Amino acid sequence: MKLGVLCSGGDSPGMNAAIRGAVLRAVDVHGFEMIGFMDGWRGFHEGDWIALDRPAVRGLSPLGGVILGTSRVPPFAGRPGEEIDLSDFRARYDAYGLDGFLLIGGNGTQTVASILSDHGVPTIGLPKTIDNDLSATDYTFGFDTAVSIAAEAIDRLRTTGDSHRRCMVLEVMGRDAGWIALHAGMAGGAQVSLLPEFPETLEQVCEWVTSVRDRGRSSLVVVAEGFRLDGAAVTREGLDGFGRPRLGGVAEVLAPLIEAETGIETRATVLGHVQRGGSPTAFDRVLATRTGIAAADAALAESWGTMAALQGDQITMVPLADAVGRLKTVPADRYAEARLNFG
Amino acid sequence: MKLGVLCSGGDSPGMNAAIRGAVLRAVDVHGFEMIGFMDGWRGFHEGDWIALDRPAVRGLSPLGGVILGTSRVPPFAGRPGEEIDLSDFRARYDAYGLDGFLLIGGNGTQTVASILSDHGVPTIGLPKTIDNDLSATDYTFGFDTAVSIAAEAIDRLRTTGDSHRRCMVLEVMGRDAGWIALHAGMAGGAQVSLLPEFPETLEQVCEWVTSVRDRGRSSLVVVAEGFRLDGAAVTREGLDGFGRPRLGGVAEVLAPLIEAETGIETRATVLGHVQRGGSPTAFDRVLATRTGIAAADAALAESWGTMAALQGDQITMVPLADAVGRLKTVPADRYAEARLNFG
Amino acid sequence: MKLGVLCSGGDSPGMNAAIRGAVLRAVDVHGFEMIGFMDGWRGFHEGDWIALDRPAVRGLSPLGGVILGTSRVPPFAGRPGEEIDLSDFRARYDAYGLDGFLLIGGNGTQTVASILSDHGVPTIGLPKTIDNDLSATDYTFGFDTAVSIAAEAIDRLRTTGDSHRRCMVLEVMGRDAGWIALHAGMAGGAQVSLLPEFPETLEQVCEWVTSVRDRGRSSLVVVAEGFRLDGAAVTREGLDGFGRPRLGGVAEVLAPLIEAETGIETRATVLGHVQRGGSPTAFDRVLATRTGIAAADAALAESWGTMAALQGDQITMVPLADAVGRLKTVPADRYAEARLNFG
Amino acid sequence: MKLGVLCSGGDSPGMNAAIRGAVLRAVDVHGFEMIGFMDGWRGFHEGDWIALDRPAVRGLSPLGGVILGTSRVPPFAGRPGEEIDLSDFRARYDAYGLDGFLLIGGNGTQTVASILSDHGVPTIGLPKTIDNDLSATDYTFGFDTAVSIAAEAIDRLRTTGDSHRRCMVLEVMGRDAGWIALHAGMAGGAQVSLLPEFPETLEQVCEWVTSVRDRGRSSLVVVAEGFRLDGAAVTREGLDGFGRPRLGGVAEVLAPLIEAETGIETRATVLGHVQRGGSPTAFDRVLATRTGIAAADAALAESWGTMAALQGDQITMVPLADAVGRLKTVPADRYAEARLNFG
Repeated sequence: MKLGVLCSGGDSPGMNAAIRGAVLRAVDVHGFEMIGFMDGWRGFHEGDWIALDRPAVRGLSPLGGVILGTSRVPPFAGRPGEEIDLSDFRARYDAYGLDGFLLIGGNGTQTVASILSDHGVPTIGLPKTIDNDLSATDYTFGFDTAVSIAAEAIDRLRTTGDSHRRCMVLEVMGRDAGWIALHAGMAGGAQVSLLPEFPETLEQVCEWVTSVRDRGRSSLVVVAEGFRLDGAAVTREGLDGFGRPRLGGVAEVLAPLIEAETGIETRATVLGHVQRGGSPTAFDRVLATRTGIAAADAALAESWGTMAALQGDQITMVPLADAVGRLKTVPADRYAEARLNFG
Repeated sequence: MKLGVLCSGGDSPGMNAAIRGAVLRAVDVHGFEMIGFMDGWRGFHEGDWIALDRPAVRGLSPLGGVILGTSRVPPFAGRPGEEIDLSDFRARYDAYGLDGFLLIGGNGTQTVASILSDHGVPTIGLPKTIDNDLSATDYTFGFDTAVSIAAEAIDRLRTTGDSHRRCMVLEVMGRDAGWIALHAGMAGGAQVSLLPEFPETLEQVCEWVTSVRDRGRSSLVVVAEGFRLDGAAVTREGLDGFGRPRLGGVAEVLAPLIEAETGIETRATVLGHVQRGGSPTAFDRVLATRTGIAAADAALAESWGTMAALQGDQITMVPLADAVGRLKTVPADRYAEARLNFG
Repeated sequence: MKLGVLCSGGDSPGMNAAIRGAVLRAVDVHGFEMIGFMDGWRGFHEGDWIALDRPAVRGLSPLGGVILGTSRVPPFAGRPGEEIDLSDFRARYDAYGLDGFLLIGGNGTQTVASILSDHGVPTIGLPKTIDNDLSATDYTFGFDTAVSIAAEAIDRLRTTGDSHRRCMVLEVMGRDAGWIALHAGMAGGAQVSLLPEFPETLEQVCEWVTSVRDRGRSSLVVVAEGFRLDGAAVTREGLDGFGRPRLGGVAEVLAPLIEAETGIETRATVLGHVQRGGSPTAFDRVLATRTGIAAADAALAESWGTMAALQGDQITMVPLADAVGRLKTVPADRYAEARLNFG
Repeated sequence: MKLGVLCSGGDSPGMNAAIRGAVLRAVDVHGFEMIGFMDGWRGFHEGDWIALDRPAVRGLSPLGGVILGTSRVPPFAGRPGEEIDLSDFRARYDAYGLDGFLLIGGNGTQTVASILSDHGVPTIGLPKTIDNDLSATDYTFGFDTAVSIAAEAIDRLRTTGDSHRRCMVLEVMGRDAGWIALHAGMAGGAQVSLLPEFPETLEQVCEWVTSVRDRGRSSLVVVAEGFRLDGAAVTREGLDGFGRPRLGGVAEVLAPLIEAETGIETRATVLGHVQRGGSPTAFDRVLATRTGIAAADAALAESWGTMAALQGDQITMVPLADAVGRLKTVPADRYAEARLNFG
């Protein structure tokens, strides 16, 4: 059996470990052939690939990024909803002599995997996203690393905030789902964690910040990039008509608003790309390796159309359709837990 | 309602976060009173306790160790199997005016929690152990931190091993269960991971080490302290009659045996207490905080005789009896995953 | 003898260790009394201080920030160049019963120390600044920590940049001196390091970035906040009339310019306050502790008007005037070393 | 000009960065040819070498260990003090067509460099040792990384020691010089730091430990491997006739002695090889890179018989004879600084 593997979408710590896990099992144990396409679908379109065997994946587990590269090049033409013409795609697929695909990616990539599978292309999904917004899996690899980096930033910002009696605002990733802000905020003891799922008014945010000051402390506000202020504040300068920041990140909009409202010196930090880089945590390395192994086993069993999901301490293959239907967002009870420390 | 909380057994990163989570929910939200006994049951016996409220747990989430201290002082007299006389215990319990106990500990402590509960003392368990050997929960807090530290040690040892073409042997904790060795070994790409659950012969271990050398690399062997060599090797000098090391740790016994058998210069490192100290990982901080919150809610619901368990991404209360019946050891399929990289 | 100590200006990792070092030597060994003013000169003006003895500084060495707080409140009225009226200042000083001052701060604070000393107030300076721009000392504490954090960010950004074939631009602190960018860039192997001391044209920067791409790699550009483009580029949108960025940080101006010029996808990250927070490196803890000890000894010796400077592996007391005369900027030969890796 | 480079002795974080610095300057700027011998003198003897150019050193700065490998194979036959016959050595040297040597190593290697130079072989030394025991240079690269790792271990051990009210003993490297113990102990706030240079009696050590307990704290003892107890204690079991430990490390001997004498539960940890592995600190990367650059410049200037030394913030070439004459040990005033925190 010959498998093709590629990564698509934003990178996520653990992708190298996932490839290594799949290769160790598929090539060494199952006797498959594996090739990896460079820079996502670009490599597939342009015939840019490398052979993957044990020497090729040597020492990969601790390495960030991904040796194959990744991109947002689409696999086939056509917009969402349109009829898809896969004739060119199939011609290439056949020319490579592939018996199946392992697709490493987030929500968009797993949707592609689902479409390909529905059209008869043997495909298995390996979920990766630092945003943790995929349904049907407890956690995706990359998330734990992103949370660790954000929590470390909170630990650092807290000491400088305390020394200057400042309110420190940290923006972390999360356009539609606030998982990083939720977990990093809880790990770092943030006094306010603002998530896309739960708009709050500027008045409420400032009340929390003021209350912390009144107890003699400095507050640490963690805010997901997709958070928007609720209520009247949406018309303030610096926010667009939908309450989303117009210029710079949300932290850079929020910090001066908090300072103006509370009189407390406030500083913004946007963590940015640092969150998705570097050596993965041990948790993500193990999760990614096991994800790769499970995907190789699923290929052997010809369980096409499935995705390797973490459920408890097991990796289980779930139908791709279950994973891509809807975004996994932060539920109300988890936000309530975080709010225990607010103010 | 008045709750007593204490920690018993070896310390585990995250205990402070667990206490903080319980206090934020129980005191601030549910309106309970909480006291913490110092140094485990010693504080209970001697009347040494502190009041726990929000200021008392301020800033605790990132801190290693535990503000209450911990010890192995037993809660009541009597050996396992004997009839237990709880009259003294109850007198103290009543004198403190307690309505329930939150017990933070590992297997031994949760067994105590189960016994107390069976004897009518309202008790809730919060599982903590770096060994991850408790049934009914996916992971215990402290484990992820221990694995992270061990994986970082592997990353470090690998570079010095490669430079000197040495075989490096790292001993990690795990007397009866090899979870730390399994996860750290997989995270660090160890070429051999030796677990208490799966004895191997010296010949097999050396075959793996030699095979790595023959491929031009240096091998990294991670060994759990409870591992024992299988077969003829058990009679070698340095091992007692049961195949357990007589002097020093198992790594210090294994390293010279490997060197003698393979001719490859081999060095042992015993990671020791470093594994259980220091600031917890973000994963453990979040797990511990949520464990504390769940325990506070269980006390409100008077769900005595239960333990806060991680199941998937939820904290669930499970009967203490389910958790303490048997040690959770590494199953064969997980060892098979690790063996993919052996040799 | 009674000493007053305070911190002024931006915080810098190691301030706690410096205070602890001074107290251990001055109070325990020399038998002095010490008090610490809260939030810099604010505490001095308002009588807000705490007694400093061994229990007060217990466990401080690894802690970031500073227990005394810091601020930019000035010590006395008057603008630079004007005659200074110290009568109010002296009245307070006498009321506290002080025999001398230990002033922890950067360039501005050491200038104040020099002025006070010139006016007969017994003063000793302890240099701290993450910017490392003080003359007469090899390094100031806080600098090594800031460089470490920036270098770690480079390590992280490099993996994500490589995966996406992007040019990553990292902005670090350094308004007038580029020491952090120089050292972090060299440590991280940055292909371009842009310093305030050495303006470069946009064309030159883009030539380096393109050359890296042509060798099949992704480039990492580290830029100090005070860097400005040389030549024609200063008139481009996003830069003010002096070539300084108008909105956002310099990285946010530079990244789109590079992308437009080279066609290479380019992303900016502004490291910000994270650089000055958190637990100091071992190097900074040792340097700060020794600085505190040397200041205590200088007070015993009544070597007023001096600053504790690192010279080689020794802490030496140098005249304050030598330290504050001119900013220590990056010399041309150090920039030439860094340029070895450019392009 | 053609330069040969090799590493000899124990590995030290930063060796890769030093090689990279030398190559970037010597090959790219000065136009030299460079080759690197594998595994120290073994590669020289056996003709095992690789060409060193810019692609060969790409990305090396953050990597621990050394791509060339290192060993303790001697460069030529003969014992110290004997007449040396270099005829074979010169034949090889000439066969390689070398114009000079860059030797990366510690005390032993720099002594070899000095001997070679005295015999007319053009040689330049690059000092590396985690022990920091070389004269004529402020610090050697690798030392800062070792201290950082040891200080982090202290931070970790302290939390578990406090939780259990235990005395924790940490053994760090340093057979003849106690620099790692001195700096790590000061950085971590150790209550006792025991150095090879300053023997103490068991009674004194226990008095410090007891005094810490009496103040309600747990003590952290850092001990260099070469420390020996002074006075009567040398005859105790577990120490050989010279007061050196017979079995296991000094920490494993000391811990039970402290426990027996004080009644305080005491645990030993031997940090071991972890200290010399892994990615170097930013400080060591910069120092090593600059050392390499300076060595390349010295070769251009034909300043043979010199060693690249850190003096203040400059790299200076010093005569090899100045560096190897005597071991740099911890002076009494530095030990006095550390003792401030004892007990």
